[in-house]
Amino acid sequence: MQTYRAVHLIDRPQQEITADVFSIETATIPTPQDGEFLVKVTHLSLDPAMRGWMSSDENSYIPPVKLGEVMRASGLGEVVSSKHPDYPEGTKVLGMTGMQEYLISDGTGLNKIPAEIPAEAVLAVISLPGVTAYHGLYQVLQPKPGQTLVVTAAAGSVGSLVGQMAKNLGLRVVGVVGSEEKAQWITQELGFNAALNYHDQDFAEQLAAATPDGIDLFFENTGGVAQAPIFARMNAHGRIAVCGLIAEYNKDQPDPGPSWMNIIKRRLSIQGFTMPDHFDRFADYGQALGGMLMKGELKYRTHVIHGIENAPDAIKLLFSGDNKGKLIVEF
Amino acid sequence: MQTYRAVHLIDRPQQEITADVFSIETATIPTPQDGEFLVKVTHLSLDPAMRGWMSSDENSYIPPVKLGEVMRASGLGEVVSSKHPDYPEGTKVLGMTGMQEYLISDGTGLNKIPAEIPAEAVLAVISLPGVTAYHGLYQVLQPKPGQTLVVTAAAGSVGSLVGQMAKNLGLRVVGVVGSEEKAQWITQELGFNAALNYHDQDFAEQLAAATPDGIDLFFENTGGVAQAPIFARMNAHGRIAVCGLIAEYNKDQPDPGPSWMNIIKRRLSIQGFTMPDHFDRFADYGQALGGMLMKGELKYRTHVIHGIENAPDAIKLLFSGDNKGKLIVEF
Repeated sequence: MQTYRAVHLIDRPQQEITADVFSIETATIPTPQDGEFLVKVTHLSLDPAMRGWMSSDENSYIPPVKLGEVMRASGLGEVVSSKHPDYPEGTKVLGMTGMQEYLISDGTGLNKIPAEIPAEAVLAVISLPGVTAYHGLYQVLQPKPGQTLVVTAAAGSVGSLVGQMAKNLGLRVVGVVGSEEKAQWITQELGFNAALNYHDQDFAEQLAAATPDGIDLFFENTGGVAQAPIFARMNAHGRIAVCGLIAEYNKDQPDPGPSWMNIIKRRLSIQGFTMPDHFDRFADYGQALGGMLMKGELKYRTHVIHGIENAPDAIKLLFSGDNKGKLIVEF
Repeated sequence: MQTYRAVHLIDRPQQEITADVFSIETATIPTPQDGEFLVKVTHLSLDPAMRGWMSSDENSYIPPVKLGEVMRASGLGEVVSSKHPDYPEGTKVLGMTGMQEYLISDGTGLNKIPAEIPAEAVLAVISLPGVTAYHGLYQVLQPKPGQTLVVTAAAGSVGSLVGQMAKNLGLRVVGVVGSEEKAQWITQELGFNAALNYHDQDFAEQLAAATPDGIDLFFENTGGVAQAPIFARMNAHGRIAVCGLIAEYNKDQPDPGPSWMNIIKRRLSIQGFTMPDHFDRFADYGQALGGMLMKGELKYRTHVIHGIENAPDAIKLLFSGDNKGKLIVEF
């Protein structure tokens, strides 16, 4: 009997994710029953949202992973054995596979993926990062040509797509990053108008210079020190999409937000969103993203880790900012 | 030649409003030219928004009052001399009259008011408080029967109307106030489900008991100590209308707001609004409010000060919370 490995969550991180919250366990590869099929997972997507799934906050947007269960993760796989007429062997599927090498499914929550799109493009553009960027930009921020948009974690998997789509719509786009290398990538390769490093002491002055007409749209992925200066430069009727606060997730006590005074003075709108609320739109968004990808409008880069045994450690890269592109584990 | 008095803004308040920022000046009552009419102001409305109009922040939602000019205020008056065919003598008008006993107008910015509605009802319900409450509740919060709404400054001119309208729509309504007398008025006279005093040490515990199903809608008029506990109890997809922050206006440095973490976790929407953006809806809102008033659905109370010379001092009551009802100056 063949076996496979799975990463189980066995403890909850206090602040930062440590190795001892996971355990890698081995099990026998199961056999599909009627109406089921066996998926061999080929790639896992590592995403900042995973930190939230590991916490015990029952009020969060999706229930936490229970202790002892396989860690939740989205992944890409291939059907290797099937008793389901709609999922013949060789079908590629994308969805919440979990951090494991094999799973049995009846198709619930999985989407079929055309075999011709490379796995890295699927995970970097068509899947969670892409639909998140698309929803946040189009539905929440509702951009108009000529507006100024600021996006944090601008070299990240979501931010880099937000900026490119906004540029294609005719906006002025300023990205906030944490390293010179990322700044160069988003300005020289992706065409952002400007990149600012939030570590710089004169970040607020640089921001003012890069946004001479103020800021109309703010796509927030990080929280942390960049938030207050960006918030202070929001124009009247400005819109803010709160997509992530990666600088806050590992803190025991998250930092306070800015005073609400400008919310009135500038009549700002702030909207938090998470994609599990919008599953019904994934197919439409995916189609739009696929079109942009084919036209060469969306560039991406990936940071590939090899082997499921290295997945638990790799998650930390998301929080240190040391990953260079969409973080993927390839089995 | 007859004279009249006007209150001019001659300095900007540092934090609290002090008497020396105003000067009462006397001028000759002017004569209307063709297309104009003379209004004798009979009542002024004192509103928290006046604090913002006195500051020098050019980025605020309407330009500040210039030093030396008549202080901006909304008021109710009667045409006493006219060379305008549409505004015969005896016409009652409502609008931005300024803090003065007389003014010349060509009708711009003034609305005619049916003579049969009492002046106090006009100022307490049909004018700024009413349209603010109506817009914030219906347009921003979009209430649904069965939801729980919390409103701060719940005995105030706006908050008391928000709560009554929400009750009429079938919501559970909890009001936050600063005194036992106000708590009794909103529960016993206005029908709020519960009233909480933000001065109480166990405010957060009382709030939890009064909102067993959490909070869906938050109509924010005050800022201050009540904000964080209310924000912490917002339900998923909760909506927040930021209408006022009266506890913050007089501070040199407004307090920070809550962490944005719950904005994501609960997918909250926060919208600041001010009514000058929505002048085009005032007529519709006024009609709806008049209908509710006639049906006896909206109770109000007024706190009347007599004489223009007492207007500058009376503004302070809005910030100390010592006014009992819509603050009106009657000439």
